[in-house]
Amino acid sequence: MINIALFGAGRIGSLHAANIAASRPRASLACVYDTNRALAEAVAARHNTRVASSIEAVFADPGIQAVMIASPTSTHVELITAAARAGKAILCEKPIDLDIERVERCKRDIAGTGVPVQIAFNRRYDQSHRAVREAVRAGDIGALELLVLTSRDPGLPSLEYIKGSGGLFRDMMIHDFDLARFILGDDPVVELFATGSIMVEPRFKEIGDVDTAMVIMKAASGALVHINNSRRAVYGYDQRVEAFGSKGMVQSDNLRASTLRRTDANSTDAREPLLNFFMERYRQAYLDELGEFIEVVAGKAQPTAGFEDGRCALILANAAIESLRSGRAIKINTG
Amino acid sequence: MINIALFGAGRIGSLHAANIAASRPRASLACVYDTNRALAEAVAARHNTRVASSIEAVFADPGIQAVMIASPTSTHVELITAAARAGKAILCEKPIDLDIERVERCKRDIAGTGVPVQIAFNRRYDQSHRAVREAVRAGDIGALELLVLTSRDPGLPSLEYIKGSGGLFRDMMIHDFDLARFILGDDPVVELFATGSIMVEPRFKEIGDVDTAMVIMKAASGALVHINNSRRAVYGYDQRVEAFGSKGMVQSDNLRASTLRRTDANSTDAREPLLNFFMERYRQAYLDELGEFIEVVAGKAQPTAGFEDGRCALILANAAIESLRSGRAIKINTG
Amino acid sequence: MINIALFGAGRIGSLHAANIAASRPRASLACVYDTNRALAEAVAARHNTRVASSIEAVFADPGIQAVMIASPTSTHVELITAAARAGKAILCEKPIDLDIERVERCKRDIAGTGVPVQIAFNRRYDQSHRAVREAVRAGDIGALELLVLTSRDPGLPSLEYIKGSGGLFRDMMIHDFDLARFILGDDPVVELFATGSIMVEPRFKEIGDVDTAMVIMKAASGALVHINNSRRAVYGYDQRVEAFGSKGMVQSDNLRASTLRRTDANSTDAREPLLNFFMERYRQAYLDELGEFIEVVAGKAQPTAGFEDGRCALILANAAIESLRSGRAIKINTG
Amino acid sequence: MINIALFGAGRIGSLHAANIAASRPRASLACVYDTNRALAEAVAARHNTRVASSIEAVFADPGIQAVMIASPTSTHVELITAAARAGKAILCEKPIDLDIERVERCKRDIAGTGVPVQIAFNRRYDQSHRAVREAVRAGDIGALELLVLTSRDPGLPSLEYIKGSGGLFRDMMIHDFDLARFILGDDPVVELFATGSIMVEPRFKEIGDVDTAMVIMKAASGALVHINNSRRAVYGYDQRVEAFGSKGMVQSDNLRASTLRRTDANSTDAREPLLNFFMERYRQAYLDELGEFIEVVAGKAQPTAGFEDGRCALILANAAIESLRSGRAIKINTG
Repeated sequence: MINIALFGAGRIGSLHAANIAASRPRASLACVYDTNRALAEAVAARHNTRVASSIEAVFADPGIQAVMIASPTSTHVELITAAARAGKAILCEKPIDLDIERVERCKRDIAGTGVPVQIAFNRRYDQSHRAVREAVRAGDIGALELLVLTSRDPGLPSLEYIKGSGGLFRDMMIHDFDLARFILGDDPVVELFATGSIMVEPRFKEIGDVDTAMVIMKAASGALVHINNSRRAVYGYDQRVEAFGSKGMVQSDNLRASTLRRTDANSTDAREPLLNFFMERYRQAYLDELGEFIEVVAGKAQPTAGFEDGRCALILANAAIESLRSGRAIKINTG
Repeated sequence: MINIALFGAGRIGSLHAANIAASRPRASLACVYDTNRALAEAVAARHNTRVASSIEAVFADPGIQAVMIASPTSTHVELITAAARAGKAILCEKPIDLDIERVERCKRDIAGTGVPVQIAFNRRYDQSHRAVREAVRAGDIGALELLVLTSRDPGLPSLEYIKGSGGLFRDMMIHDFDLARFILGDDPVVELFATGSIMVEPRFKEIGDVDTAMVIMKAASGALVHINNSRRAVYGYDQRVEAFGSKGMVQSDNLRASTLRRTDANSTDAREPLLNFFMERYRQAYLDELGEFIEVVAGKAQPTAGFEDGRCALILANAAIESLRSGRAIKINTG
Repeated sequence: MINIALFGAGRIGSLHAANIAASRPRASLACVYDTNRALAEAVAARHNTRVASSIEAVFADPGIQAVMIASPTSTHVELITAAARAGKAILCEKPIDLDIERVERCKRDIAGTGVPVQIAFNRRYDQSHRAVREAVRAGDIGALELLVLTSRDPGLPSLEYIKGSGGLFRDMMIHDFDLARFILGDDPVVELFATGSIMVEPRFKEIGDVDTAMVIMKAASGALVHINNSRRAVYGYDQRVEAFGSKGMVQSDNLRASTLRRTDANSTDAREPLLNFFMERYRQAYLDELGEFIEVVAGKAQPTAGFEDGRCALILANAAIESLRSGRAIKINTG
Repeated sequence: MINIALFGAGRIGSLHAANIAASRPRASLACVYDTNRALAEAVAARHNTRVASSIEAVFADPGIQAVMIASPTSTHVELITAAARAGKAILCEKPIDLDIERVERCKRDIAGTGVPVQIAFNRRYDQSHRAVREAVRAGDIGALELLVLTSRDPGLPSLEYIKGSGGLFRDMMIHDFDLARFILGDDPVVELFATGSIMVEPRFKEIGDVDTAMVIMKAASGALVHINNSRRAVYGYDQRVEAFGSKGMVQSDNLRASTLRRTDANSTDAREPLLNFFMERYRQAYLDELGEFIEVVAGKAQPTAGFEDGRCALILANAAIESLRSGRAIKINTG
């Protein structure tokens, strides 16, 4: 059994805590740490485990093999680095950091430790998106030529959250950048254009962020990628992928709680709204992500998304910000 | 060019008149006859043709090669017999007659005339239902085992119409009996059970008819067929076929005026109501039915639905009435 | 925490064991009993619980509040009766028994014990079928007029299983009879006609069973119900419900592992086969069924399906057998 | 009856000829002109009309009220100008010209003639795309925020055609630019970014064209528009529109010849390929476009797409070419 320490007992940390607890006997939740001790205690109590006294205590504990980092983004680099040095396997929430310089330094700092790092890009574990990736990799659509990602959140987070989020491209679209890279496989993005608007919440102007955005990317092969984002889809969490190629097309679609269709005098085959948000839509994906991590810690698998994927997604997000400002396509070199 | 005389200038006669007129130069509407002369004149004027002075004059006219019989059901047998004796090819609306004895006599009377008779079972010409038939015939689903026909009218006709219609089984479900036979191919129906209810219009009780019905039939092979009918579907004309077999399933579905899907906070992917009724849903089927008839008259094709099909569908309808009354499955022998 | 004893450690018993174990801390798997002790030990070990020494020991144990009966059908009545007398709440797999006389006697024997009995008609807990039921109950489709249930297993069980199963109507279609009753609500079935064929496995003839069947039922209101069953659908477990009424229609559809659609030069929007069988399709339903039972034991809920529902479904299954033999519609009186 | 002269007897001219002939008695095909006299004679013979002796003769004929211009693009401006001066109403195929200077001059030349000019942007007449436009205009989705147009041809035209076509943006995507403008209504495009690749046919490199492209546009309101094009979709002519707004989403989808769905052991609900190309997909749209033109000539309607729409679509196409070359977003001013 693998003992996992959890950093961060907020919304996403609580989700991971429950999943780790439910993964017994493959893994167990060894302890929980949060700077907000009350939060940590609540999560620990719910899963019958203990609160860690300090970060250092976690890393010094020889009974802990792995850490799940779900604390605020600004703490990720420091925790990754310390965990790697302590020889603890790492599953870290996205993004690694908002600052590419810090990410690059972290990359150098952990080089050679041999510790596996998995980045929690949950969409890679969704069975439908993953089926798109597998079909593309298997050559089912021939050469990939057009990739269209639709990704819309059900509603605005608090402006407070937005302020510290790094903006739409680093906070929200970073998932789509990663998913695009996942489906492109070894065909790197070489160019990116981004634009955006404030359509949902006028106060985004003060923050210097957008709530609605479109991106086009070009890969080395010439394949073109489109991503569109909105911070507010009234019908739920809209998550679709369409991959088009020389032999055809594969598409993944949204999930709903039931298959009910309603037909009346005004409309036919109406379905219910989509599952509301990532906790619902990617519920199984989070479990499968953890399942992979347990395999990774046991040395039986490589992470589907590693540190390098986190770094590259951030480079694309940063390029999008630059493109939005300059009105130019940005050359990408993730070398 | 084939010159076609039209008997009957009512709703369905008008439709056929327009289709014949539009089929130029392959065929032309030679004349129109209706006991209601004003109706005949209106249709003739619309298509720049003449009104026939009498039924006899039509059959005596050597310039007429074919007749379209769209007059009331009670006149069909007499017109078919006379047309066959006059050597005019026949396209006759369903049903041939409500009385199987008259149909059998008509069969004997026209035997040996060599005149082609096509019965206007429009659904056989629908591209989607026809695709089901072709897939079954091609063996795409292996041996046919279950056949489910859903057939619901958008709304009640007048009670006056219902009274003279022969009842739901001979007026409405006769189409489904024929469509089932079309898909079964050379596997004859050997047993039938029917039940029905009055759910839409209480006055059906006085008429001795039902407005809602279900049937099960068994074919010689053991294949089972289900048909369900309602006289009133608020969402439009519901026409679906599902054929299930040892290797899979094929289904034909409904048509709508557009592909629009609507998604809002309450529902997703809602489509518009179905095309309202047979004039809309089977618009192309009527054209293809006439196209086949023109080929039949020219000796280039055999009718997809002939006299024998009209006779067998009536036998099934009569058996349904008997089953409804007796509560028993009825053995069928169309021999 | 409610302590549940499990009778039967076969395929479905193992499923229930896992679900009970996962329901902690709401309920726990107190012990497992099976006449095949090795089976019981394997299941007990997997969930870190004990094997009961005897049936009597279970009923004598004051620490056990409830029993899950997943043993062979022939043992159900005896276990239900003993459990009721011992004051243990009961969740029993379907059918209660194959013999209606034994069921009636059991009903009398447990009358007055006040012990809740829940029958494991899993489909009532499926979110999609349940949504159909809720929509009908809420009046969303007006008066229910036509109900069509499609229910096809992915493949044949062993002939050995079939021989002891009570036949298609009592083993397989009993689920559909119950689901129809669930959706009909307080509108009882008053008439039933059944027919069947051997299309899949000729040896069903020796057993006196059918592998393909259709039923029509009429409810007191006049609403008509159709059920069709096949023991072998090559594309997976086909489970659909369509409820049609005066104001429209609601339908529940099948589930697949992903939403992937494939489009190539030969076909478009092709989806993967359906989830294979009841363990996959009704995975969540089994959890929700258990969740309800825990509420029932705690006195906070009434069973969605109780003893009376098990009895009525069997009456319908028996009527189907009689109808198949006689070729007549059978009057139903579940009084 | 409106007498229409046809310029151009090629593929699209033949289609228009047939539609005009079928529109009797509302309009008639007065004559046909083509520099290839044999082509003109063939089309004229098919519809029982005459060949015009010269362009001048057409414009001098007082019996002709309107012209359909379906000749090569390079002749459009001259014919429009002459027709306007001769007082003949104009229905002209897209694009008006490949050279914006010539279009601007034509605009000035015909100003003040009062002659109605309709540009044949066929997609505006498609019932499904039009339903998207109507839903947006009616406010059904609230404020329009994201618009996604998918537009893929089934296969490559000849390289010879491509060479004279003006390139993907002016020949193919011009339809999408117009459709986007149609849906945006009075919200003008203010910025455009384009990129493209050669994925289908390497010889496009010699021609200086692309066969695969993506565009993002921003409207004055901030609404963002994405268009993707491919010259080769193996599954047929892919034509979809998705409009997303503050209250929901509407989508138009593709058409197929039938509604058949196939299900077997490998896949479920597979549909047939899409209608192959514009002649099939927009068959009804061409008829409705002509129907509108007849109303326009009669003074009963304004063209849905006029000269100004043709001019603006070309401006967007030119901006796309400039963006592709420069890697910059281009500011649009159609003033």
